[in-house]
Amino acid sequence: MSGTTVSIVGLGSMGLGMARSLLKGGLRVFASDLNQARVDEIVAEGGESAPVPEAAAASDILVCVVLNAEQTRAVLFGPDGWAQHMTKGAVIVSCATVPPAFAREMAAEAERLGLHYLDAPISGGAVKAAEGRLSIMASGPDAALDRAQPALDAMAEVVHRVGPDAGAGSAMKSVNQLLAGVHIAAMGEALAFAVSQGLDLEKVLGVISTSAGTSWMFENRAPHVIENDYTPRSMVNIWPKDLGIVQQIAQDAGLSVPITETALAQFRKAAEAGDGEVDDAAVTRVYTRAAGLKLPGES
Amino acid sequence: MSGTTVSIVGLGSMGLGMARSLLKGGLRVFASDLNQARVDEIVAEGGESAPVPEAAAASDILVCVVLNAEQTRAVLFGPDGWAQHMTKGAVIVSCATVPPAFAREMAAEAERLGLHYLDAPISGGAVKAAEGRLSIMASGPDAALDRAQPALDAMAEVVHRVGPDAGAGSAMKSVNQLLAGVHIAAMGEALAFAVSQGLDLEKVLGVISTSAGTSWMFENRAPHVIENDYTPRSMVNIWPKDLGIVQQIAQDAGLSVPITETALAQFRKAAEAGDGEVDDAAVTRVYTRAAGLKLPGES
Repeated sequence: MSGTTVSIVGLGSMGLGMARSLLKGGLRVFASDLNQARVDEIVAEGGESAPVPEAAAASDILVCVVLNAEQTRAVLFGPDGWAQHMTKGAVIVSCATVPPAFAREMAAEAERLGLHYLDAPISGGAVKAAEGRLSIMASGPDAALDRAQPALDAMAEVVHRVGPDAGAGSAMKSVNQLLAGVHIAAMGEALAFAVSQGLDLEKVLGVISTSAGTSWMFENRAPHVIENDYTPRSMVNIWPKDLGIVQQIAQDAGLSVPITETALAQFRKAAEAGDGEVDDAAVTRVYTRAAGLKLPGES
Repeated sequence: MSGTTVSIVGLGSMGLGMARSLLKGGLRVFASDLNQARVDEIVAEGGESAPVPEAAAASDILVCVVLNAEQTRAVLFGPDGWAQHMTKGAVIVSCATVPPAFAREMAAEAERLGLHYLDAPISGGAVKAAEGRLSIMASGPDAALDRAQPALDAMAEVVHRVGPDAGAGSAMKSVNQLLAGVHIAAMGEALAFAVSQGLDLEKVLGVISTSAGTSWMFENRAPHVIENDYTPRSMVNIWPKDLGIVQQIAQDAGLSVPITETALAQFRKAAEAGDGEVDDAAVTRVYTRAAGLKLPGES
């Protein structure tokens, strides 16, 4: 026991793994989620559960890993929010993908209560979350980072120090999401194009993986299409949200992002076609369905 | 000396390096280009120069590495073309990026003259060309591949056997160009977005290179923007051509490729702004100029 107590709010596919990593790191962990079954899982593994005021008051660190800005605001500063019950000098580690301006607003509210705030979006997926091997893009003052260190050490393989102010972490995450989302949609466009030319997709994967056209997402997602396996490792529905944030931030900055917008439109079409909750590699079907082409495993 | 004679037509940045690799491989090499200075370079290094009828008749292999389909047709089958002078059983290795249907047409014409034809687009850039370390995406019958082997061994690190018929090699190359072109334009969009958010681009390169948003092109081209060095390793003008081919092939197949088209539009804007002959990383300026943002080194 390091003597550090962490509350973690949001036990989705990422949060559940992060809670386990915190436990493995020897920290005292309060788990919280609207879904009681998930809380029970963590309690069974050594975590604790308590009403918000009690858990918040006991915690040095609050890790907030909910879906979006709206949920983040409610968890932190809503009527039943955590921040009002936290001890001065404690730190909020906010992990949702949100606009930079929202992160700055949350940091200012936290500081008003005498709390530290770390703008700390995460990357790496559910498997790495459970292994304590996430990438964290963190921005905030040194004091916030220092207070959060025991939790970061338990959850992350790499903590990228992006800047001293909230907002930079979220901006960096959005740069990553812009590229990742575009690359997934481009993977779909390229595989559909390959099918239209009668190429074997296994061969395409082999050639492209060793060529200048490759990307992390191509190598990771193309196999899902080839194996006709759309079990959601990461859902289509992530992208209308995350690329929508990129689009909004860019628009506010007077920057045109036409490739992001085109990829966003493809993910929206995938969701409208009923593929919102399957693996995001299913964006490939937007192309092949419209062109009357068959992907592997389709008859 | 292996006893194999190769003619190489087209001594651009790729062809010049390939000619050197053929010489290093111990082959007898006839060099040909409209630019006599380039021919003289190769002759000074041990190559030979002769009128087309003579060089063609002496060659087991003709490597054609010109700019596009139009030039390929003229070199092979134009009034002063090479094919009519080649010996039956010799092989044409065609390296330009062309539509698959065009490759099939060339192969049929070559076969009519008793020649073998290898649809063999190349990838890897000028440096690898000079090192004999290209990737070649080759399709054609075994006989064509066998005849071409001494030249392929000298020029390539990897020869991907894409299929037994002309067209598949060109289709695979277009899959690669689709992805590569989109990834370069996405790199530009992402860096402009990062600048609009006040992020340091060195830090962006460091974080993204180790995150899910990375691509081969991002890691290769982003440094050009960060160093403000647009010396053309690969020119903007490549992309209106190569993505135009992708768009045309896709349209003929009834496939919509909106991300390719959006990237294509960005490269066209870069060329229209006068950046056609600088490094393709300059597509980033299309974004920043329109938004009034400054890239590293700009005042």
